[in-house]
Amino acid sequence: MKLDDFLSTVADSCKKQGPEQTIVLSSRVRIARNVKGYSFPGWAKKQERIRLFENVRPVIESLDEMKSSFSDSMDNLSSLEKQILVERHLISREHAARNSGSGLVLNKDESLCVMINEEDHLRMQLIQPGLQLDAAWKQLDEIDTRLEESLPYAFSRTLGYLTACPTNVGTAIRVSAMLHLPGLVLADQINQVVQAVSKLGMAVRGLYGEGTDALGNIFQVSNQMTLGESEKDIIDRLNKVLKQMIEHEENARASMVEKKPKIVLNQVGRAYGILSNAHSITSKETMNLLSMMRLGNDFGLFSKMRRSLVEELFISTQPAHLQKNVQDKLSAEQRDLIRADFLRGKLRSVSRPSDKFAEVSSADGDDSDPNI
Amino acid sequence: MKLDDFLSTVADSCKKQGPEQTIVLSSRVRIARNVKGYSFPGWAKKQERIRLFENVRPVIESLDEMKSSFSDSMDNLSSLEKQILVERHLISREHAARNSGSGLVLNKDESLCVMINEEDHLRMQLIQPGLQLDAAWKQLDEIDTRLEESLPYAFSRTLGYLTACPTNVGTAIRVSAMLHLPGLVLADQINQVVQAVSKLGMAVRGLYGEGTDALGNIFQVSNQMTLGESEKDIIDRLNKVLKQMIEHEENARASMVEKKPKIVLNQVGRAYGILSNAHSITSKETMNLLSMMRLGNDFGLFSKMRRSLVEELFISTQPAHLQKNVQDKLSAEQRDLIRADFLRGKLRSVSRPSDKFAEVSSADGDDSDPNI
Repeated sequence: MKLDDFLSTVADSCKKQGPEQTIVLSSRVRIARNVKGYSFPGWAKKQERIRLFENVRPVIESLDEMKSSFSDSMDNLSSLEKQILVERHLISREHAARNSGSGLVLNKDESLCVMINEEDHLRMQLIQPGLQLDAAWKQLDEIDTRLEESLPYAFSRTLGYLTACPTNVGTAIRVSAMLHLPGLVLADQINQVVQAVSKLGMAVRGLYGEGTDALGNIFQVSNQMTLGESEKDIIDRLNKVLKQMIEHEENARASMVEKKPKIVLNQVGRAYGILSNAHSITSKETMNLLSMMRLGNDFGLFSKMRRSLVEELFISTQPAHLQKNVQDKLSAEQRDLIRADFLRGKLRSVSRPSDKFAEVSSADGDDSDPNI
Repeated sequence: MKLDDFLSTVADSCKKQGPEQTIVLSSRVRIARNVKGYSFPGWAKKQERIRLFENVRPVIESLDEMKSSFSDSMDNLSSLEKQILVERHLISREHAARNSGSGLVLNKDESLCVMINEEDHLRMQLIQPGLQLDAAWKQLDEIDTRLEESLPYAFSRTLGYLTACPTNVGTAIRVSAMLHLPGLVLADQINQVVQAVSKLGMAVRGLYGEGTDALGNIFQVSNQMTLGESEKDIIDRLNKVLKQMIEHEENARASMVEKKPKIVLNQVGRAYGILSNAHSITSKETMNLLSMMRLGNDFGLFSKMRRSLVEELFISTQPAHLQKNVQDKLSAEQRDLIRADFLRGKLRSVSRPSDKFAEVSSADGDDSDPNI
């Protein structure tokens, strides 16, 4: 399968929805593994890295989950393709900078991605829509068990899985969820919540991981510690924190609608007005306005819009996704024009938001959600 | 006639259009006169001011132009009514603060307004739509001549008409035009033009006169000197300056459309998007966005919108005009909500602007203007 085939699936992949989808965009479990007898990627010479890559790649490709997968070495990918993979959250920005000896294997629906020779020999991630960390871990754990039959992992009885960076040693697991928290941001309670969550040993980051802004009011919450706790305990603990954050966000939204409905209507209306009429718009402004449209949709203000449309626009208005459809290399300014054209086109069929809250729809996100 | 009857005529009075209407909103000629034998209003005691008011008022009311006029003493007007007259540019902010002994006489179509006991005994203004200073002066001059038959003006053979403030002595005339200059503002040329105009002895002010901002990219240009030149010379000189400013504005607009069409489309689109979807908006933001809609309309981007709608909204979204329709005294915050509701309602029938310039329509404003 070609990378291009994956790249045209944003709309489809955004239609997949899971529990608590109103607030939880996605759940992700990532584990790091290294293969005995090979230096860590940061120490290995190029030839050794290539040897590891060629040894490991067919094993991963042979997994049932990797039927019709995309698999390649990083040096075969253009920088545009790499950037698109980053914008889709499939590879890290660091991995995008790597070349021969590094690569990836990606399954058909983009839920499973294995980076080879990133910081560790293997970085495997499983993403599911909504809040389903347990399910994601169950799947990834099975895959890991099957891989372990063919690959001798670097493992210590006392420390657990060995990793290039000591912060990952032990379970080498990172579980995270992507939360949309416009209510807490509008109510000016987000800093309080982030601080409380940090004290519970969780890291809160922006949309594109460490050191990035919470564009679009999207926050990534993940475990900090990988040592001294089982995977299940780590996931249980994160689940508890996430449930609390969801509750806080729901309360903030309900309180906004009750006490300051005009502020919500104003933000949602302006977001719609600008996104559907601008002729130049930056990625940052787009994300923040899309966040307000998503919130408005959660409140039932857009009668016929699917929530997945907003999710699709979050991704497809990113720089590399815009560049993909155009021959010439675009400057940032040109991208802002094309982004605005693209948004006006996509939103043409979306009617202006309602002037009133029909009913206070609380976050449900289960299968009865009309937005699915 | 009651003041309320005048107050419901914004839409009608905005439909009147004149030459160069695209850029020149209105032309205004104002003269100051004082009556012999009475102290200037600032020196006169209350009784003397009342005597002057009662003496002069019937003379003005008897003018043919003042049939079905509105006439009253300032102390009979509520502060809301006074504020509405200020927002309509019919009386000065200073006059609105005055009480018994001061008053106004206003003709039916609001083109002629005489303030009694403002800074001078009489301040008469004649306003015409578009650029027609000569016509306005001709009308006002005739009225002045007829008044002079009944009122002995304070006049000096060497100085001319005597006025309370020496800056008005001589012709005591102030001629001005209200210009909409979004092209020069967008092209960042406005400061240059304002400086050049100032050097030619003209004053450039904001929408509500001295010391006010150029909200909505509207600038008021007027003569500074009243002494040593005839009225005709003053008007000729201002006309020349205005013609040049109009040309500069036209050039700036043409150049924007040619070189930076997306900037114009972006500003116009965003203005429309925000004005027709916001649920809270300040007067200042409203003015600036309406300015962009007016520009878009001049460029033919709004297929069916009348220009007078924008002009009407400039006035009717002002604080006192909004307050007029509501029982309770509104806070600024409440006004922002009502303003937004009002704008959404008014713009419901206006379709989103075109994505392209059909043709570069230069400023004409004559009778063949489709906007009239």
